[in-house]
Amino acid sequence: MKKVSLLLLAIFAMTIMISCSDDDNNDNPAVDPNTITDYNTPKYVFFFIGDGMAQVQMNLAEAALNDPGFKGNKTFDVGLGQMAMSKFPVAGMSTTHAEDRYITGSAASATALACGEKTTINTISMNGDRTQNLETMAEMAKAKGMKVGIVSSVSIDHATPACFYAHQPTRKEMTEICNQMPTAGFDYYGGGGAKGDKDQNTLVAAMQNAGYTVATTRAELVAVQPGTKCWAYNHNLDGSYALVYAMDRPDEDLSLAEFTQKGIELLDNENGFFLMVEAGKVDWACHANDAVAATYDMLAMDAAVQKAVDFYNQHPDETLIVITGDHECGGLTIGFSGTGYASAFEILKYQTMSYDEFDNIVGEWKENPDGHTFQMALDKAKEVFGLGNTALDPVFELNDYELETLENAYNKSMGGESVYTDEETTIRYGYYDPFTVTCTHILANKAGIDWTSYSHTGVPVPVMAMGQGQYEFSGYYDNTDIAKKIIKIADYK
Amino acid sequence: MKKVSLLLLAIFAMTIMISCSDDDNNDNPAVDPNTITDYNTPKYVFFFIGDGMAQVQMNLAEAALNDPGFKGNKTFDVGLGQMAMSKFPVAGMSTTHAEDRYITGSAASATALACGEKTTINTISMNGDRTQNLETMAEMAKAKGMKVGIVSSVSIDHATPACFYAHQPTRKEMTEICNQMPTAGFDYYGGGGAKGDKDQNTLVAAMQNAGYTVATTRAELVAVQPGTKCWAYNHNLDGSYALVYAMDRPDEDLSLAEFTQKGIELLDNENGFFLMVEAGKVDWACHANDAVAATYDMLAMDAAVQKAVDFYNQHPDETLIVITGDHECGGLTIGFSGTGYASAFEILKYQTMSYDEFDNIVGEWKENPDGHTFQMALDKAKEVFGLGNTALDPVFELNDYELETLENAYNKSMGGESVYTDEETTIRYGYYDPFTVTCTHILANKAGIDWTSYSHTGVPVPVMAMGQGQYEFSGYYDNTDIAKKIIKIADYK
Repeated sequence: MKKVSLLLLAIFAMTIMISCSDDDNNDNPAVDPNTITDYNTPKYVFFFIGDGMAQVQMNLAEAALNDPGFKGNKTFDVGLGQMAMSKFPVAGMSTTHAEDRYITGSAASATALACGEKTTINTISMNGDRTQNLETMAEMAKAKGMKVGIVSSVSIDHATPACFYAHQPTRKEMTEICNQMPTAGFDYYGGGGAKGDKDQNTLVAAMQNAGYTVATTRAELVAVQPGTKCWAYNHNLDGSYALVYAMDRPDEDLSLAEFTQKGIELLDNENGFFLMVEAGKVDWACHANDAVAATYDMLAMDAAVQKAVDFYNQHPDETLIVITGDHECGGLTIGFSGTGYASAFEILKYQTMSYDEFDNIVGEWKENPDGHTFQMALDKAKEVFGLGNTALDPVFELNDYELETLENAYNKSMGGESVYTDEETTIRYGYYDPFTVTCTHILANKAGIDWTSYSHTGVPVPVMAMGQGQYEFSGYYDNTDIAKKIIKIADYK
Repeated sequence: MKKVSLLLLAIFAMTIMISCSDDDNNDNPAVDPNTITDYNTPKYVFFFIGDGMAQVQMNLAEAALNDPGFKGNKTFDVGLGQMAMSKFPVAGMSTTHAEDRYITGSAASATALACGEKTTINTISMNGDRTQNLETMAEMAKAKGMKVGIVSSVSIDHATPACFYAHQPTRKEMTEICNQMPTAGFDYYGGGGAKGDKDQNTLVAAMQNAGYTVATTRAELVAVQPGTKCWAYNHNLDGSYALVYAMDRPDEDLSLAEFTQKGIELLDNENGFFLMVEAGKVDWACHANDAVAATYDMLAMDAAVQKAVDFYNQHPDETLIVITGDHECGGLTIGFSGTGYASAFEILKYQTMSYDEFDNIVGEWKENPDGHTFQMALDKAKEVFGLGNTALDPVFELNDYELETLENAYNKSMGGESVYTDEETTIRYGYYDPFTVTCTHILANKAGIDWTSYSHTGVPVPVMAMGQGQYEFSGYYDNTDIAKKIIKIADYK
């Protein structure tokens, strides 16, 4: 402590009092921008990435939450349910474009978010011409002696998580990517399996050789003790080695929130930690234009965010939580030309399974087409999506245009030939099963929402921040700036 | 000044120093949320409302600005041109729903923004059941002795400007609304004419009787001196008494920026002022799904914002500028199913007039249909929208699907009968001329953007803030909170 005499302090205090009395009109001094940068270096950093998440995905989840019939319904507030992430004190906006394309992909976007540098489409944490590795904030944190965890609801070698621990010229090199998991030596990988290692055995052996405990059930994960390096994934995965959609999740599967909570438990130590959590299937649901599957995966992400908020509440002076999306997906909007100003979000709750599960049902029809009729398909659409079930809600009545659209789609689905031959069918069905995607479209449209694309879009994404350094995330900036801000605030470099 | 003994101050100072020395690891104290509220009460408040503006409308304008061929091109920055509003230090997000409908209208939304209270659709600054007037922030500012100005690019008695000076059970009472202009007694009304006073004469007389100078040309407006109350509108107006679209504006018409600059000049006084500026035709262009007209009106709004920023730079310690949208319109997204990940914003610059002007051309065809052919219409579409002009850009090549879509639309336009008879045509054309809206759709789609609606949508809107109290606008909140924040910061109530 510097020695300052009481006399000097008294004079200083008098000076302040005198200067205040000189300026009666301005008893609140002007805000000093420097006060905004006046924060602790956070020991604990959470970085949540909603793949395919922009404002509208958030807002739709909030609207759904306002319906008491929706699973997970929380509070009622000004016509919207509030998610944990809706209540963050700071929000900003971010642009997302890649070095070589305006509408970005998850690899280029995650490289920007992990390293603070633009790169080219499909590149995993290397520069745009793929000649040099870019250091990731997770690697920087580890080099500073912090523990590091990577959690994703899709496969752990998918583009977004990969960009935090791997460096590859293309995201398609998934075997190479997952080989870099033990090399990176992070403390915790959680969520999906490894798509680059089809039987998981090679990677499991490599991880165990590198000292990792591999857990694939809730009981196994509960048993992992702090101080142990761990790779945890659900033994039940979808065909892409991702967690199943949140709305289809059986109780025995671990949720994204559970993987996040275990990460906090394993990483918590006096040197601090960095934990990245990706909600990867918001994007996949939006590609398929399934608003309900996207909404439940948003709520699953929010439950994971709540775990971080709980931790923040225990360590408010040492924690920073940042949430963003890597890009929008699907061109989702809360408005549809056929419904004008009307909305009926409450009907979304009647969808009982994701498009992915419904695709399996349509697949069975295709395998046994004899005797299968459009009426049978309509009956199933009524059961799974509520379409035509006016007893549930009068808005479900199908008009002639909708029935014709469904029948055309059914015929395309059952035809067995490629339907993606011209612009009109590409616009109608994307690269999805015609009958399934027509069902999700009609349900969305009846609810008053619509899509413009089966791909990512260039729509800016929101950024939410809570904790030490939070005000740095106010304003409108580029996705590379998000990484630069985190690296600066956390003093990673 | 309160008397506090030097001894007590000295003890206080010591206490601070001791508590600092106890905590060597935290040499940066935790950010105190109170420092964020440590600002001057701003004497000068600007409130910009982009009607129909959300993030995507901003982002499209930025993308267009990046093209050197676009009129008004500014800087190049990370693949986007930057608007003045893009560089505001604080950004937040706002929900927009009305008391009685999720997708709001301009009256309910402007009531929320002017008064901080939710109300019902079409209500002008009254409570939801239309029994009580709600005091507007403009009225509060006037009661505090400040000068007040209201500027809009649409008619001055349109819903958004009206909600700052009038109180009516419905926005349709435009004669009653404009009668309230002299009663409110604000210092400056600028922009569009008065739709509620068809020949403008009654209102002109009433305004002159109330001491207002009425100016309808640049020369007349230039001549108005500070200290004079003024109503200024362009003598050249569209059929709805609004300024013409920015992209169609003849040089002799005053721009929104000029009306704003004159407002600043007339309002500037030692007691301070409140100036609301609405860019009203972003909304109208988005209703019509005309991305190019919307973009130029966004740039016209931004030029007005720049005038406020110039003023801020002269008075940074006394000024607050807040910008928001009242709701999104059109469900605009930067992505289209037919183009996937591709974008071609650069082709937007070839559109030479707004849909509104083109409608007039189609109107002439309808009046003289004999001998008019689809090929002649195609030639005009090539001239005005670039469609089919591969010499300009190869992306303009029209495929069979697009040609068929244009021919169907042409036949609907020329048919003379109502085309809005079923859901399919409503989705295709909204309530707009089929051929015109099909041209703007195909141009937008070729550029890689798309729309989902001809109405407003429920998409949240951005909020940007600069100046005293700016950090209050960080986070994600409701549109009523925007008004509450301004009223609190400016100490209006």
